[in-house]
This record gives sequence, structure tokens and C-alpha cells, in this order.
Amino acid sequence: MKIVALAGGVGGAKLVHGFGKVLAAEDLAIIVNTGDDFEHFGLYICPDLDTVCYTLAGLANSDTGWGRADETWTTITKIVELGGPDWFRLGDLDFATHIERTRRMRAGQSLSQIVNSFCKTWNVTPTILPMSDDRIRTKVETQEYGWLDFQEYFVKYKCSPRVKGFNFQHIENSPPAPGVIESIAKADAVVICPSNPWVSIDPILAVSGIRSSLIGKLVIAVSPIVAGKAIKGPAAKMYAELGYKPSALTVAEHYSELIRGFVLDNSDESLRSAIEQLNLHVLTTNTLMTGVKNRIQLAEDVLNFIGSLI
Amino acid sequence: MKIVALAGGVGGAKLVHGFGKVLAAEDLAIIVNTGDDFEHFGLYICPDLDTVCYTLAGLANSDTGWGRADETWTTITKIVELGGPDWFRLGDLDFATHIERTRRMRAGQSLSQIVNSFCKTWNVTPTILPMSDDRIRTKVETQEYGWLDFQEYFVKYKCSPRVKGFNFQHIENSPPAPGVIESIAKADAVVICPSNPWVSIDPILAVSGIRSSLIGKLVIAVSPIVAGKAIKGPAAKMYAELGYKPSALTVAEHYSELIRGFVLDNSDESLRSAIEQLNLHVLTTNTLMTGVKNRIQLAEDVLNFIGSLI
Repeated sequence: MKIVALAGGVGGAKLVHGFGKVLAAEDLAIIVNTGDDFEHFGLYICPDLDTVCYTLAGLANSDTGWGRADETWTTITKIVELGGPDWFRLGDLDFATHIERTRRMRAGQSLSQIVNSFCKTWNVTPTILPMSDDRIRTKVETQEYGWLDFQEYFVKYKCSPRVKGFNFQHIENSPPAPGVIESIAKADAVVICPSNPWVSIDPILAVSGIRSSLIGKLVIAVSPIVAGKAIKGPAAKMYAELGYKPSALTVAEHYSELIRGFVLDNSDESLRSAIEQLNLHVLTTNTLMTGVKNRIQLAEDVLNFIGSLI
Repeated sequence: MKIVALAGGVGGAKLVHGFGKVLAAEDLAIIVNTGDDFEHFGLYICPDLDTVCYTLAGLANSDTGWGRADETWTTITKIVELGGPDWFRLGDLDFATHIERTRRMRAGQSLSQIVNSFCKTWNVTPTILPMSDDRIRTKVETQEYGWLDFQEYFVKYKCSPRVKGFNFQHIENSPPAPGVIESIAKADAVVICPSNPWVSIDPILAVSGIRSSLIGKLVIAVSPIVAGKAIKGPAAKMYAELGYKPSALTVAEHYSELIRGFVLDNSDESLRSAIEQLNLHVLTTNTLMTGVKNRIQLAEDVLNFIGSLI
């Protein structure tokens, strides 16, 4: 069974890690949000791509949800001593990724070429695709500070400003990266990972050609919201600030025109009938991927669910 | 006595370190070559400025003559694993300098503002000035490869190509950095450090306004060539390839229109009379700065020599 996964950072990375353990490499392609990408210190940083790659490579720091395991902090410590900004912490191992990526981009390589090459070094065998090779930038409109770059909102202000809306800069002129549309066309099913709908998945869907390529495909989504809360990140807070009740039902409504099946946590079993009324097939299972075993279990559950819908 | 020193990398850094130990901070300004500056990994790297600053700060790696003491190599090791270039080795501590400098330049700060700020952090109290805030690039014309960037010639090809000439790109439109001409005007004497005449000192002298500001000043030079050889670097090889016999005499001739006094090593005492025939005052002393004591001794010798010429 050929699967395409749409993923943001931590939640998406965990589920695709599970898929990577149970699917053959050639049967898994992961399309990753790049709206969070930004430049810092003149370096080109791709938080979601790196989280997905590091996780699949077994290099991720599972405590923080970002950056690498066994990290050291020599360079950033000295940068801060020199008066540099400390709000975005980069470790020595992580710096290598950003520095070499930046060098290659300046030498004319595309982001997808670079990801492909890095994955070879890291022995990551599924196909990892940035949603686009162009520079799309997620902007967050806030009550307090007006429009913020996503990383300012997310890291510098720790998601505390009240959200009013989003904009994905340059998205209308940015084609999908090579392989994105082809992978979707070949897939038996597309899985929307338990990532933030507003700022991880919506940017992917907004890249021209991606949403329309999903028409007629079997698409299912896994809820990032469990018992009214996001496992990680500001998804629930964003729903509330935008006037929605944060719940798996709200997420199902968010995607309802696009999906045929919806996966939610056992603890949200009470929402099943409301979601079924959206004309969706529903799977309830354990969606808390607290360890690698649970990632594999959820991946298998999702694949079985897809199998039942084909 | 107010001294301005013109300096390149290692040799210049050692002598100004000596000056720094015997002169009050307000009596020493150091104008540093930036023709060797280049961009690597998208980072702005200033080899001579950093060598001078690290040396004065007591942070330099005295074994290598470049980079920092107690350095670690985490980031560059991972960059090379990813397929990045390994010909220019940058340590984790050193990366901090380049990354923060690059961030500041992109934020609109000038190189001299940045050097000034970094020196405060590093407790470097003499005035350190880049020769220019503009991007001047030393190019080396070689028999084998045509025109090379200086760092390619110097580091990548380890100075092995035969030199045919030099060019300092953009120098005609690059004004001296703020403070350069003013420091020279206030100085009692200008010391040309034992740096490479072709690629460390000549670029400084070629910045518009600097050479003319030396007219009428007491200028003395310290030979970087001892017993026909350069203490470090390709100065002697360059002289030979350009058709000159490498010797302290040749260096004295190189600067003869500009200087009033010349300092050479005891081992070159035999060249004294030939150099005196260039109408120059001559000091022979121990110019081998093998330790901090010798740096101080040479600095004191040079200052006494200047005192005798005022």
C-alpha cells in the first residue's frame, strides 16, 4: 500500500516514524510543511523538515521535540556572549545542517535536492519532500503585535499573543516541489498527520495544485487534538482564539470536505457520532505516541483503517 | 607615544600583541587588512581581523596561527559528513564569531562597528580598525589556475600555485573605515608590521587616502623576511615567483618610498649597509617572536627605535 503523509513538526514526525517502521521505503512519501522556514544569522532554517528527518534518522531530541539528541551548545553560547540573539537556540550539530544547507542553496541547489542528499547521509529511506522549493512564509496576525513571522510567534513569543489570522506569503506563485503531485497521484491513500491544521497542514494544502490533486483520493486525517487539548503546540489555543471550540470534532470539520476517514483518540469516543454525521468514517484508537511502540501501533491502526476503506 | 600599526595576520598580530602590552590602550590603533575576507557557507569571514583580535584577547590558537585555543570541531565534522567542503576548517568557537558577524552585517551594522563591539566582549582595549568597511577582495593571479580568490590560493591550494600578480577588487571605490585616517593623523609614528607585503600590507596601502595620509609621517617597517625566508606564509615564495630575491633588503626596497626606518633580524646584519644606502635608518634586533616575552621585547625595541628617530 502506497502512502503519502502530510506532516508538520513533532506530531507528524512521530506518526511518519511509525509508518517508516511498517512500510517499505518505496511505499512512503512525506510532504512536509516549509511555511515555518526562516532565515536566522543568515542561515536557512527548516524546522519541520529537520524534525521529520532527524526523527526518521533516529537523531532527534525526543525530550525537546526539536533539534538533535546528544547536542552541545558551544557556538550559540559564544554568540550570545557577543550580544547575539538567544531566542532561537541552535546546537552545534544542528548548526551543521543549517550551515551546509545554506551553502548549497547559495550554490544553486534546490531545497528538495538538499533534503534528498542529507537523507542519504542520515540513512533516511522514505521519500521526504518539502511542499515547495520556493520560499513560502507563514505569517501570524496577532492582537498584540500585528503580523509576526511564524518563528517569532512560536519561539520568541512562545505562542502567547492572541491569534487573529494567518497568511502564507508567496504561496500563490510557489509550485509544489518536484515529486509532490506525482507521489500523491501514485498513492493509495493520503494521511493528514496529527499536526497543527492552521500552520502545518493548511500551508501544504494551499500550495497550488496540492489540494486539487487530493480530489477523488482516499484521504484520512489523524486528530492533533485529544480531549480538547493539543498534544504539543498551539493548535487548541488557535482554535479557541479564532472562535472555535478546540476538539477533535472541530478538526474533523476543518478537513471535512477533503477527507473520507478520521482518526481520534479513545478518550474522544464521545465525539464519534457527531463526526460520523459529517459523513466520515471514524476510527478511535490510542493516538498518544508516547514511545516508538505507540508510533508503530498508531501507524498500523491507521493503515488497517485505510485498508478497510479501500 | 601614539602608534598606528598596519597589520595582516599572524606576524602582525604578534607584534601588536607586544605593543598592547607596553602601550596604553588609547595610544595604539591597529589598521587591519580585510582583503583576505571572504564568504563561506554564506558566512562573512575576516581571517586577519580575527587573528589580531583573538591574539590580543588571549584567545588565539598559538599552535596553528589561526582560529581559537581550546577549540572543538563538532559542526564542521557534521558538515563534512553531509558532503560539505572541508578545505576551510572552522571550529565551534570560531563559528560563533562568523555567524554573529554575519547576522549583524545583514542587520546593517558596519564591519568596524562589529569589530568594536566584539572587542568590548573580548576585553581588547586598543582600537582595532578594518582598513575599510567595504568589501575589498584580494585576488591572486596564478600560473596554474588563473585568478584565484585569496583564500582559495592560501588555504585550498596551500600557496602552491605560482604567483603572477595581485588585484584588490573594489578597492578604488572603497573608502577607509571611520577612524583610519584620523588615527594616522594623530599618530607619532606608523609601524608596518612583519606581515606579507604583497597581500597583507599592500591592500591597506591601496585603500584610497591611506597611502597619502602617510606622507610626512614617521613610518617604519619590520621585515617579515628573515634570512631569506618568511617566518610564516608565502611572502618569500611570492617574491621569488615575481622575480625578486626574497630578503629583508627586498622588503626594504618594497617600502622605501614610504618609510624612514627599517627593522630587521640580527641574522640579517649583513644587509644593513645595503638598506642604509636606501636612505633608511636601520635597527637590527631579535625579530623572532617565539613567545610573548619576545613580542614585548620587539615592541619595546621598535618603540625605542622610533623614539630615536623623532
